[in-house]
Amino acid sequence: MHIVDLNCDMGESFGAYSMGRDAEVLRFVTSANIACGFHAGDPATMRRTVKLALEHGVALGAHPGLQDLIGFGRRDMDISPEEAYDIVVYQIGALSGFVRAEGAKLQHVKAHGSLYNMAARSAGLAEAIAEAVYRIDPELILFGLANSELIRAGRKAGLRTASEVFSDRTYQEDGSLTSRRLPNALITDERQSVDQVVRMVKEGKVLSQQQIDVPIQADTICIHGDGVHAVAFAERIRRSLEEAGVLVQAAGAGLRKS
Amino acid sequence: MHIVDLNCDMGESFGAYSMGRDAEVLRFVTSANIACGFHAGDPATMRRTVKLALEHGVALGAHPGLQDLIGFGRRDMDISPEEAYDIVVYQIGALSGFVRAEGAKLQHVKAHGSLYNMAARSAGLAEAIAEAVYRIDPELILFGLANSELIRAGRKAGLRTASEVFSDRTYQEDGSLTSRRLPNALITDERQSVDQVVRMVKEGKVLSQQQIDVPIQADTICIHGDGVHAVAFAERIRRSLEEAGVLVQAAGAGLRKS
Amino acid sequence: MHIVDLNCDMGESFGAYSMGRDAEVLRFVTSANIACGFHAGDPATMRRTVKLALEHGVALGAHPGLQDLIGFGRRDMDISPEEAYDIVVYQIGALSGFVRAEGAKLQHVKAHGSLYNMAARSAGLAEAIAEAVYRIDPELILFGLANSELIRAGRKAGLRTASEVFSDRTYQEDGSLTSRRLPNALITDERQSVDQVVRMVKEGKVLSQQQIDVPIQADTICIHGDGVHAVAFAERIRRSLEEAGVLVQAAGAGLRKS
Amino acid sequence: MHIVDLNCDMGESFGAYSMGRDAEVLRFVTSANIACGFHAGDPATMRRTVKLALEHGVALGAHPGLQDLIGFGRRDMDISPEEAYDIVVYQIGALSGFVRAEGAKLQHVKAHGSLYNMAARSAGLAEAIAEAVYRIDPELILFGLANSELIRAGRKAGLRTASEVFSDRTYQEDGSLTSRRLPNALITDERQSVDQVVRMVKEGKVLSQQQIDVPIQADTICIHGDGVHAVAFAERIRRSLEEAGVLVQAAGAGLRKS
Repeated sequence: MHIVDLNCDMGESFGAYSMGRDAEVLRFVTSANIACGFHAGDPATMRRTVKLALEHGVALGAHPGLQDLIGFGRRDMDISPEEAYDIVVYQIGALSGFVRAEGAKLQHVKAHGSLYNMAARSAGLAEAIAEAVYRIDPELILFGLANSELIRAGRKAGLRTASEVFSDRTYQEDGSLTSRRLPNALITDERQSVDQVVRMVKEGKVLSQQQIDVPIQADTICIHGDGVHAVAFAERIRRSLEEAGVLVQAAGAGLRKS
Repeated sequence: MHIVDLNCDMGESFGAYSMGRDAEVLRFVTSANIACGFHAGDPATMRRTVKLALEHGVALGAHPGLQDLIGFGRRDMDISPEEAYDIVVYQIGALSGFVRAEGAKLQHVKAHGSLYNMAARSAGLAEAIAEAVYRIDPELILFGLANSELIRAGRKAGLRTASEVFSDRTYQEDGSLTSRRLPNALITDERQSVDQVVRMVKEGKVLSQQQIDVPIQADTICIHGDGVHAVAFAERIRRSLEEAGVLVQAAGAGLRKS
Repeated sequence: MHIVDLNCDMGESFGAYSMGRDAEVLRFVTSANIACGFHAGDPATMRRTVKLALEHGVALGAHPGLQDLIGFGRRDMDISPEEAYDIVVYQIGALSGFVRAEGAKLQHVKAHGSLYNMAARSAGLAEAIAEAVYRIDPELILFGLANSELIRAGRKAGLRTASEVFSDRTYQEDGSLTSRRLPNALITDERQSVDQVVRMVKEGKVLSQQQIDVPIQADTICIHGDGVHAVAFAERIRRSLEEAGVLVQAAGAGLRKS
Repeated sequence: MHIVDLNCDMGESFGAYSMGRDAEVLRFVTSANIACGFHAGDPATMRRTVKLALEHGVALGAHPGLQDLIGFGRRDMDISPEEAYDIVVYQIGALSGFVRAEGAKLQHVKAHGSLYNMAARSAGLAEAIAEAVYRIDPELILFGLANSELIRAGRKAGLRTASEVFSDRTYQEDGSLTSRRLPNALITDERQSVDQVVRMVKEGKVLSQQQIDVPIQADTICIHGDGVHAVAFAERIRRSLEEAGVLVQAAGAGLRKS
């Protein structure tokens, strides 16, 4: 049977500032990536988001980012592998505080924004992040872009990994995402998005921009939590996957059973 | 036999800024209160300080403070008990990340500066902090000012507590510290400091400013880590206690044995 | 003829976070209090807000707050007068950079949240803020709560001041605002709000909670910029004042003419 | 007659953290680059440093950096020209607040660390910074690396510029600095440092690592303010220049006279 996880970034409010429709999206996803206070989020938001995810039976993940609140962690910074290690340990630890306070367990770690993208390309950063995750808890699942350095580093470190695919992004023949700077990077047609995702999960393939099928591992699908149509689209993706006979469950669920 | 712990705040460097003589003071203290990035400290400093304390066999503690780096956590802020809970969970969690990454265990929590002082006076803040500590790990020892609301709240929550005394501060007949705004708040004579501390540990008494002996519980003594004479004084306090037949060991040491 | 200014806090977005309906409210107010990056706002938001206010012909003001982004500057902090002076100089200066870059001139300064409230009560803080404003530019108008220490300090320093009144708050017989901790602090009936404001402007009186008329100077009225009904209410206040024969213009307009 | 300016970064303390030997170095330099609170510095430090520089008759400059306190502004960040414009306007403005409060005038702007280096290479960032400086005050002098994009952009914008040279760095045959990643990037011999500087000022030439003389404009020399030998070396550079018949004065001094 085909199995996939649906994950969404959340807990990205900050102080008086509100962001995302967490409570609604949590009805459709199976893993929550919770911001840890560096690129977004704050202690109160983290506490509330952990509780909210637990109420919805959604698995908990840390979502560490660069220490750049004003840029929302989306501006590349020239950090060293050691700095990446340190900020990831700090943020996973901080979120773990709230998770333990609720008597729960952290399932996974997914880096945010530029940290995610830089770690997809840089073996040095990827290995530092994988080491951070492993040393905190070798049971944690490392989420990363399918075919990336981060997934390779996670496996090498002895971690379980979840290869992430995107419903709204197109792919190149080498299995990488089309750069956002190029035309056709984004899929705006919902039907096409859904079809691409279902095929990636069921057939392990995606049609690249070069019109060649590329093999891709789809362990978890990234769902967006803001924007006007986010909630409706989350619902549609989930329903479409289930109608196609795919079991939608948290990345760690099957593993825990086996 | 009389037993006491010597604790010192450390890991208070930040980025390019250096503070404290941690490596030297660690030779004489038994518990390290490690800053967690809010009033001082940063992820790299936390990693280094945890390792350094472990190398010296010194017990590890979290030292959470107010989110006021520019004021070094020393300016009272009107935070709610819920906010106190959140910032304490966050910071203990963050430090715990580094502690777990080194395969070690956190011994205690000591609040910093204004958070420490406000929690000594306010039952609401004290209970919030005690709850935060308990929910993260009920084995943690809560450090607090002797005779304070924080010690009361810790006991009420079911935590082990360590009543802290100061070698360089004078006391009032109700067992409280003389306010720094009053003359004679500080003891500047080293000999007098040492004698006060030894007596508090061995006799459970301190001579108040009203010239009346006041009962005081001295589980742990606060040693300062900066200033010209800090290291020499730390050494002197330790030697004087040992010469007086006091066993100097980490707050959790005896408890772990029993 | 009766004259009054309508002011509104704005430019309180931060990075990826949006707040307030500035463009809409600017159609009805005459003075904009622009956040300066401490309690809210960031450099990009400041640039945009200065331009937006200029496009609407609305006078520019600095809106300095406590350095507490996570608490939105609404948590009292125990800062010294010297610290108040420093953060006010810094923030007025920063906003002035954007104002000068657009070839415009700053009209006024209105402190935010806890800084505003603390300076209303504390002569020391009030004098420090007034001194900061005066030393940067003695032509600036200092906004402050009617009957407050801040207004007194501004006059003493030789500054022009604008006494601020609130449409949605009730008053005590000593001319102070009813504390938000008491019932009846807020006026929720729009008609009553409007009537109170018009009377304050035209008669210089407000009916206190003790049912006694209290004299009050109403140079400028605080309009809220967020909330569901903010824009509609701003429009209503403005129209009601004009229908009552009041000239609504920026605090510095009349002064500049004379 | 040959004229040169000696500049030094200062005001880089932050809150409880102290950095630099500003008061001593000010005895020998003619221009002070004062940190503005992003990479270092804080409002109180800015106030004190402005006053201290004025007491020593040293010209005042803003020293804006990236918003990365933890990295001291030394980690490249992928910021847009618009973001560079905004952070430079903000920081020059903030420092100008303190300068105006003391009744003084800002002489120059020198970007810090990564912002300085990125603007030396990127025409887009350089033009944004030059525009920011020009729009705030077209009389300001823009400091930048000799032969850099920043100097080119400053001239293009209509600003006066000061080409900066380094006493302790070696040069390449194209007039650029030898990368710190290469051996021989640094000159550690003090005599050699002094000789290089005197020759750059008097002959407008520097011997490159390729043993070829390269033309270089030396309007201002960067002096370091921390490190064990900083003060002694500042004194030596100044004395050596004066003994070689060079007039050492602030970059704006001659221009103001003409």
